[in-house]
Amino acid sequence: MSKNGNGGLSPIRHHNFCAGPAALPTAVLERARDELLDYHGLGLSVMEMSHRAAEYVAIAEKAESDLRELLAIPANYKVLFTQGGATQQFAAVPFNLLGAGGRANFVTTGIWSNKALAEADHLFGDSRVAASSEANGHVAVPRPRDIVLSDDAAYLHYTANETIGGLEFDYIPDARRPDGSDVPLVCDLSSSILSGPLDVSKFGVIYAGAQKNIGPAGLVVVIVRDDLLDRARDDMPSLFSYQALSDAGSMINTPATYSWYLAGLVFEWLKDDIGGLGAMDIINQRKADKLYAAIDASDFYSNPIAPLNRSRMNVPFVLADSRLDKRFLAESEAAGLLNLKGHRSVGGMRASLYNAVPEAAVNALVDFMADFEQRNG
Amino acid sequence: MSKNGNGGLSPIRHHNFCAGPAALPTAVLERARDELLDYHGLGLSVMEMSHRAAEYVAIAEKAESDLRELLAIPANYKVLFTQGGATQQFAAVPFNLLGAGGRANFVTTGIWSNKALAEADHLFGDSRVAASSEANGHVAVPRPRDIVLSDDAAYLHYTANETIGGLEFDYIPDARRPDGSDVPLVCDLSSSILSGPLDVSKFGVIYAGAQKNIGPAGLVVVIVRDDLLDRARDDMPSLFSYQALSDAGSMINTPATYSWYLAGLVFEWLKDDIGGLGAMDIINQRKADKLYAAIDASDFYSNPIAPLNRSRMNVPFVLADSRLDKRFLAESEAAGLLNLKGHRSVGGMRASLYNAVPEAAVNALVDFMADFEQRNG
Repeated sequence: MSKNGNGGLSPIRHHNFCAGPAALPTAVLERARDELLDYHGLGLSVMEMSHRAAEYVAIAEKAESDLRELLAIPANYKVLFTQGGATQQFAAVPFNLLGAGGRANFVTTGIWSNKALAEADHLFGDSRVAASSEANGHVAVPRPRDIVLSDDAAYLHYTANETIGGLEFDYIPDARRPDGSDVPLVCDLSSSILSGPLDVSKFGVIYAGAQKNIGPAGLVVVIVRDDLLDRARDDMPSLFSYQALSDAGSMINTPATYSWYLAGLVFEWLKDDIGGLGAMDIINQRKADKLYAAIDASDFYSNPIAPLNRSRMNVPFVLADSRLDKRFLAESEAAGLLNLKGHRSVGGMRASLYNAVPEAAVNALVDFMADFEQRNG
Repeated sequence: MSKNGNGGLSPIRHHNFCAGPAALPTAVLERARDELLDYHGLGLSVMEMSHRAAEYVAIAEKAESDLRELLAIPANYKVLFTQGGATQQFAAVPFNLLGAGGRANFVTTGIWSNKALAEADHLFGDSRVAASSEANGHVAVPRPRDIVLSDDAAYLHYTANETIGGLEFDYIPDARRPDGSDVPLVCDLSSSILSGPLDVSKFGVIYAGAQKNIGPAGLVVVIVRDDLLDRARDDMPSLFSYQALSDAGSMINTPATYSWYLAGLVFEWLKDDIGGLGAMDIINQRKADKLYAAIDASDFYSNPIAPLNRSRMNVPFVLADSRLDKRFLAESEAAGLLNLKGHRSVGGMRASLYNAVPEAAVNALVDFMADFEQRNG
């Protein structure tokens, strides 16, 4: 893959801070473009291949094996490539894990974890909040000792990174009932998967919508420990079944073949161009540190999150004078800094610094912010 | 859009008869390629746009309005762009239509209609076969008088075109209970939607996986009459809800944005390059007539389907001597005629002649078949 993916951008490409669907590496898009009409001389596009064709199966298997290598996924975990985004997993998780009884337990830390809880509740009722940061306005995640599961907990669900709030866990919770027995830990990792190394062995189920650090929207990756495949409810839509997806190599029906291929290109870029998740972690830390430092050094900008839980991927900030918001957004866009508007539910600004956002983009943003402050402060 | 989409192929593109994911118009892929790194000078790819961005919403709305125009969809129908393929709709349809009680009724004509029935049965039991072509080996669809609904029918489901069997309805069934009262007609149109004009007003629900005549795999289009939005079961996964999808403009969560965009390019190609579904219908009829004529004129090739129900989209055929199958497939592939192998469940050959398969491809196939017969007959 060409080497300009995370470095300078080609002249036509602007800096894209979108929260999702998010920026993809330029090198990945260049390769997709070059292969779009004719994949490796086969005379057709990847989009036009049967998912059963040997060439496509090789693409799919390479993507899985690269993802396994990047995250060092243990052999007793299945990797599934399915559809419907994280929101579909809000339903699929309880369908797959509540078949042997028990209650879903949740740590709620903002909009996305509450949505996951609401869907489990809508379907099966009786969900339990094991801990919440609601009392502090979701600016700091609950500490480990504050997470108290119910005696009948079937699993504990949490959201590693709240994309809208910009709140990220600084630790992996322990999922134990009051009697000390383990329950599976389930994590929505949509907006921080692949941002750095991860100890997958701590988890029962990990799921992640692709449209932040994996690939285009419409794909969701599920990583599930194989001893959990027998806990499903019988009344589940067939496509939700982790067991059935696993048995079929994620091909119960036609998968999102092109999105899967693009995810594979992103995995390859992470391995070959970036050098793996250790290297990615360092770059991401540097990017986030730089932006938070700029925010903290000024009274003009502010971010409300406790330092320990500041998200490396999504940095919301507000201007001291919100009447300047429109001007900030218009001028930043004119300067080639795209999609800095905060989520409609919270307003202000948000800069998402996913893997594909190069350090040069953060430098340009920090420079713009300083200049804007000087002109308007 | 460039005009070589349905005419000659560019030298690098072979003739692709895949049943799905299937051929896309070369002109569509060329445009996607040209726009891949920078959409209309905005400095980012369509894949990298927020689904809430004005530019993306314009893409999504244009796709819907072009589809409405192509199919002359009446104003009292909602058009939804969702995920999970037709297989997810096998579950979503009963969830959406059985909330007021009653039984799902099915016409079964092969593998796909039986899968739709099996999923409804798996979820809610008690599905009824209103008619079946099983007795004739699925070579002719039931006649209208043979379709007998139950007194408590909630809807009648059928599969307009069986992709594997190559069996296509020559009429739109009447969906009436024995007492003469109407029930909604539900149709899986995955493999024949947009192959010609359609009277949408005859249907309650139409759904179609994209990966044949619409776009890439991972997208499914649902067209639903608005008076049916209030019949849903309460225990439905939120993403399945036609009402919720309709209220949110298909954006309950992040949709498959890039697939939706590509579908829009296909709709534009159908309108502007082909001239609409009337013109497409004539081309498709000519393509199918030519291939069936070649099969019928020879004792070397045969197709078992009753002439009235021969699919225009999927033409299965066998060689009189199946020991020649491997040679046929190897030589056709070497001649640039790709993916002619029949479905693994039936063997033999299958040529899918979807909209994006140009007449030149059929000519090349017919010529190859005659030549192969001469050398091996």
